[in-house]
Amino acid sequence: MSDITISDDTRERLAGISTATLTTQLFKRGLSNVFLFGLQPANPAAVNFVAEAYTLRYIPSREDIDTLEVFKDYDHPQRKAVETVPPGQALVIDCRGVTSVASAGSILVTRLMMRGAAAVVSDGGLRDWPEIAALDFPAFAAGSAAPTNLTRHHAVEALNEPIGCAGVAVYPGDVLVGDAEGVVVIPRHLAAEVAVDGFEQERQERFLTAKVRGGSPLRGVYPPDENTVAEYEAWKAAGEPEK
Amino acid sequence: MSDITISDDTRERLAGISTATLTTQLFKRGLSNVFLFGLQPANPAAVNFVAEAYTLRYIPSREDIDTLEVFKDYDHPQRKAVETVPPGQALVIDCRGVTSVASAGSILVTRLMMRGAAAVVSDGGLRDWPEIAALDFPAFAAGSAAPTNLTRHHAVEALNEPIGCAGVAVYPGDVLVGDAEGVVVIPRHLAAEVAVDGFEQERQERFLTAKVRGGSPLRGVYPPDENTVAEYEAWKAAGEPEK
Amino acid sequence: MSDITISDDTRERLAGISTATLTTQLFKRGLSNVFLFGLQPANPAAVNFVAEAYTLRYIPSREDIDTLEVFKDYDHPQRKAVETVPPGQALVIDCRGVTSVASAGSILVTRLMMRGAAAVVSDGGLRDWPEIAALDFPAFAAGSAAPTNLTRHHAVEALNEPIGCAGVAVYPGDVLVGDAEGVVVIPRHLAAEVAVDGFEQERQERFLTAKVRGGSPLRGVYPPDENTVAEYEAWKAAGEPEK
Amino acid sequence: MSDITISDDTRERLAGISTATLTTQLFKRGLSNVFLFGLQPANPAAVNFVAEAYTLRYIPSREDIDTLEVFKDYDHPQRKAVETVPPGQALVIDCRGVTSVASAGSILVTRLMMRGAAAVVSDGGLRDWPEIAALDFPAFAAGSAAPTNLTRHHAVEALNEPIGCAGVAVYPGDVLVGDAEGVVVIPRHLAAEVAVDGFEQERQERFLTAKVRGGSPLRGVYPPDENTVAEYEAWKAAGEPEK
Amino acid sequence: MSDITISDDTRERLAGISTATLTTQLFKRGLSNVFLFGLQPANPAAVNFVAEAYTLRYIPSREDIDTLEVFKDYDHPQRKAVETVPPGQALVIDCRGVTSVASAGSILVTRLMMRGAAAVVSDGGLRDWPEIAALDFPAFAAGSAAPTNLTRHHAVEALNEPIGCAGVAVYPGDVLVGDAEGVVVIPRHLAAEVAVDGFEQERQERFLTAKVRGGSPLRGVYPPDENTVAEYEAWKAAGEPEK
Amino acid sequence: MSDITISDDTRERLAGISTATLTTQLFKRGLSNVFLFGLQPANPAAVNFVAEAYTLRYIPSREDIDTLEVFKDYDHPQRKAVETVPPGQALVIDCRGVTSVASAGSILVTRLMMRGAAAVVSDGGLRDWPEIAALDFPAFAAGSAAPTNLTRHHAVEALNEPIGCAGVAVYPGDVLVGDAEGVVVIPRHLAAEVAVDGFEQERQERFLTAKVRGGSPLRGVYPPDENTVAEYEAWKAAGEPEK
Repeated sequence: MSDITISDDTRERLAGISTATLTTQLFKRGLSNVFLFGLQPANPAAVNFVAEAYTLRYIPSREDIDTLEVFKDYDHPQRKAVETVPPGQALVIDCRGVTSVASAGSILVTRLMMRGAAAVVSDGGLRDWPEIAALDFPAFAAGSAAPTNLTRHHAVEALNEPIGCAGVAVYPGDVLVGDAEGVVVIPRHLAAEVAVDGFEQERQERFLTAKVRGGSPLRGVYPPDENTVAEYEAWKAAGEPEK
Repeated sequence: MSDITISDDTRERLAGISTATLTTQLFKRGLSNVFLFGLQPANPAAVNFVAEAYTLRYIPSREDIDTLEVFKDYDHPQRKAVETVPPGQALVIDCRGVTSVASAGSILVTRLMMRGAAAVVSDGGLRDWPEIAALDFPAFAAGSAAPTNLTRHHAVEALNEPIGCAGVAVYPGDVLVGDAEGVVVIPRHLAAEVAVDGFEQERQERFLTAKVRGGSPLRGVYPPDENTVAEYEAWKAAGEPEK
Repeated sequence: MSDITISDDTRERLAGISTATLTTQLFKRGLSNVFLFGLQPANPAAVNFVAEAYTLRYIPSREDIDTLEVFKDYDHPQRKAVETVPPGQALVIDCRGVTSVASAGSILVTRLMMRGAAAVVSDGGLRDWPEIAALDFPAFAAGSAAPTNLTRHHAVEALNEPIGCAGVAVYPGDVLVGDAEGVVVIPRHLAAEVAVDGFEQERQERFLTAKVRGGSPLRGVYPPDENTVAEYEAWKAAGEPEK
Repeated sequence: MSDITISDDTRERLAGISTATLTTQLFKRGLSNVFLFGLQPANPAAVNFVAEAYTLRYIPSREDIDTLEVFKDYDHPQRKAVETVPPGQALVIDCRGVTSVASAGSILVTRLMMRGAAAVVSDGGLRDWPEIAALDFPAFAAGSAAPTNLTRHHAVEALNEPIGCAGVAVYPGDVLVGDAEGVVVIPRHLAAEVAVDGFEQERQERFLTAKVRGGSPLRGVYPPDENTVAEYEAWKAAGEPEK
Repeated sequence: MSDITISDDTRERLAGISTATLTTQLFKRGLSNVFLFGLQPANPAAVNFVAEAYTLRYIPSREDIDTLEVFKDYDHPQRKAVETVPPGQALVIDCRGVTSVASAGSILVTRLMMRGAAAVVSDGGLRDWPEIAALDFPAFAAGSAAPTNLTRHHAVEALNEPIGCAGVAVYPGDVLVGDAEGVVVIPRHLAAEVAVDGFEQERQERFLTAKVRGGSPLRGVYPPDENTVAEYEAWKAAGEPEK
Repeated sequence: MSDITISDDTRERLAGISTATLTTQLFKRGLSNVFLFGLQPANPAAVNFVAEAYTLRYIPSREDIDTLEVFKDYDHPQRKAVETVPPGQALVIDCRGVTSVASAGSILVTRLMMRGAAAVVSDGGLRDWPEIAALDFPAFAAGSAAPTNLTRHHAVEALNEPIGCAGVAVYPGDVLVGDAEGVVVIPRHLAAEVAVDGFEQERQERFLTAKVRGGSPLRGVYPPDENTVAEYEAWKAAGEPEK
């Protein structure tokens, strides 16, 4: 992870910005592959989070290595990842898009929550989905899948290395933001500026949406022409919060 | 669009017929590929609609053409489509089955609603899904996808041309019917007869379902034999509405 | 179906064990492909069942054979399957993973329920999904799909033969267990032992989950070391039910 | 298999007709799903055959049943199929489209050849592909795949039942025709008429191709108008063989 | 098509540049989606061409419209496209990636060749593949597929509109280049500069390849450092052709 | 890599055993996922190799990082991998199954060959396929794909870590064997015994194939019963080489 600091101000702003807006801000900066498509939250009431990525990688399992015995080792990489992700960070798991088996189950996700992790994000499945859905903890995955990860996955030793998740590059320390739409990955060095510009974009879009709801056509309004921008600036000056 | 008129009677009947029944009526007439498989409503409480199709087509985007700048043109085809779809019609978008990015977002869908469009139907994603889910407006798409359409799509100039959507041919003026199961496309020239026969099929199936719920076996009942048909006709004569 | 008896005790135990636990028990016995991935219940409030499999197989349809006329024959294999599945058993349908059309609709599923079948399980779609969702009857399928099965499927004469469903082998008489996560297939000869060991696994996991919720780390607890096992045994002796 | 006889005349005609032409003839008769898409011949020099279908069906394998031990039983269904397919018929294998493992290997294919089978057709893989490619025997499959069928497949007892292969219905006794383009399935009751009309279509297309090669435009020629038909009839009368 | 002229010099240069090099030149200019992945030439000895795109678009077929009767109309869009593509241009067909049926057959491809078209490029199948493979004419498609296009496709009236082909945007007049690796689409306005720079890139790579074959390591050579560039310039000055 | 030595005897034996036989030997030992399905050799005349795996891993690329500039760094991981793979070993590249772009091109593959690498194996594409096809060097990949790896891939720093390739686990030092059918991965600790048993299996299969070619039925012969085993032992004693 680079030594760029993510300030509290940036975190607060990001927490209020939709993943849709964030993808637009990143697209403006030339990045088009930042949204973890195809994931869903286990608990639709626990979706919002802002967190640095801490990564775990799975490769295909092999029958002679990946037996249930491996879990007797408390230093098994999957267990170690759960116990070492720093509080406030999100555990992101690379399952190579294999969705038919679990990447973790309710006991490990409960432990993540107890340890103060911010979220778990996987492009594979989760087992004990109903139990995880009952936790007040953001857990995004491809869906429910009962079989243990060992049937298809082997967790590699090296933790917190760059991975792919749902087709998107995730570097340790990248900033993930989750909402009801899904999860977006913000390269760490862009987090601060994206937070500022995204906040402004959303404020303006709230104003424009109100106009459209009031019957305005797109012409002149979306995107705003000079007149609408002036109106918006006046509205903003009249009292919208600056952050 | 042909000059066949869709009568109010046809619209009313169609509004009460399930998409399942409509696919059966069309299968009877030799058409087997009429259901837009894989779409879901953003708002499960806003699914029913009957509307002619007004179409928009996307091709793959190209980085030098499809920049955020294009939206400064209020005559950009996507915007133009939103502003020109006639009230009461449904905007149908051909995304080539690419589901990982949006075909539209909440401001455009709100504008469609304000303009009196009947629905938006896309085989791609929609962004701002949570906002769209809060509208009292039928919006069917492959699912939630935050990234702007420009990351994968380019809207072509020519509006209201024949397209494919979710693998089904959609001609301008075809009659789309939506319900909780999804969306069916009825060739315009078949709408009237399908409405009449579909209404009759459903009335009979309500009668047959009641018998099955009462313990009747399928034999003699589903499909109905002579005796059951006679029973049905008596029941119908006893007061079921004719339309 | 072999002549192994599934005892009431086994049924009762299985009814309380999650499909996740059952896949682990089967993985311990060398079986890794037992979960019907990708299915969802039509009615999320009607998911739990334990039942032997009674099977029906579909091959691709052919336009000259698979017309709506075939349903006039009350001995059409699909109808016959619905009328012959023994009470308490589950009708399992092999749709070759074709999800875009129905494998059955609400009248047939209602009839299954009336006849005392335990569930219907299909790796294809179901039509009249909203109606089926309103039944107090476990119906698992790939999802909602309006078109009649005839558009893609032909039901073969021979009922209750070995099939594949969602990529898993299903032999007549195999024991299926459903819950909110999905459906697992237990080879008949393993049902009794899996029921006993699965019950024990879940009891222990309830104990371990409580510890993790209380702040315990994974080390020493999951899986339990000697001390934790001793604690567990004491807890169990203090009054947890033996079955 | 029905008791319709496939005459030598029909066989001879079919042997000279391309699979492309045969699909057109079947499309004329309302059948659109008759071509086994995605198969390739192991030996490009051994592709032409006309043969009734003799079928074998695979379901997903299970680790406790499908061990290498099973092949010690000479009556294992796969082996039995190889030893019972009547001379002149084609063994058609339903692998559910699983292409990553073999459906058979060179020893079994050699035995099929020695027994006088006409061909082997599978929508799965074949192992020992290079050895099979060296045989003067039509073998069509999805491609080369080294792992034994047991890793994914279990051969079911009941031989020569209706199956699906490459998404197409295959009934025992259907007539398969192979050429360099692939394999087409002709419903048995249509074989005779398709043979006659297909022969005529090809004769005419040879004539029309010659005209196009001579510089004729499509207009008037393809399809032929009255004048071109007259020319063709004259050419035919001048000596083209009648069968 | 814009009024940018593609000079003979540009055509000649492009004819000698590999599609791999051209994708690098376009990537340098910010374009990453320009290669028609997944296509193969019917005749491996006829792959090289440089040609402007002339487009045809298919949507899904419908049974009541797309019968064999339609071909009696010589102005059917597919036939019209074949007869109107200007000599020296390539007919590019958008099949929505449906590969299991044909987009054209040998008579139409023969007619294209006779009319002086440069190539046919389709992301669908071609029927009569063996006959087309025997023509001295570049024909790129997803592969061999016997069934007529009507089984899945309907050709739309409007010819030479922007399309997608194999996931890439193709605008009328874009410059396509084919070689043994496949087909690349060059936006018309970039053709000239890409031709110049691509020629230079390949000349340099020939020089560098010779060094690597001579035992040079990558360091200093690939990409070339100052010394290697100087060597290259000397070599070039010693007589390599300038175009 | 473990310190197990792969003896010359093991290498020699493995060089003569088909990948099909090796998958059977590994299946006997409980391993069913060892074949790199879906790869093809660029040069069909250069397929045989036996080599330890040296691995390189790609994650999804990001536009701000993965520009053509990166190749100016001679220590870029892709270049470093090419320059550090030990002579006699195979470079195995994990492309996450993304086949539409290249994992390497002809200059790097040429350099691998010059350095004495045994092969390159990738589950992605290769560019300059025609040039690579002309090298006397085993290069297995998903197929031809012109675009540079940077359009989709980012090479990670850490070389020679465990990866997945074509869905199979590959640990550094695993023994890969290639032939005309494809590539199999042998866990290092099993290489010696698999070499011995595979050699014996193939010798016996040559004998059995000869019998089948001579007209023997499968019964008694495949697999061999006592009599056939005795015959085989006699034949072997009569002079077949022991290794």
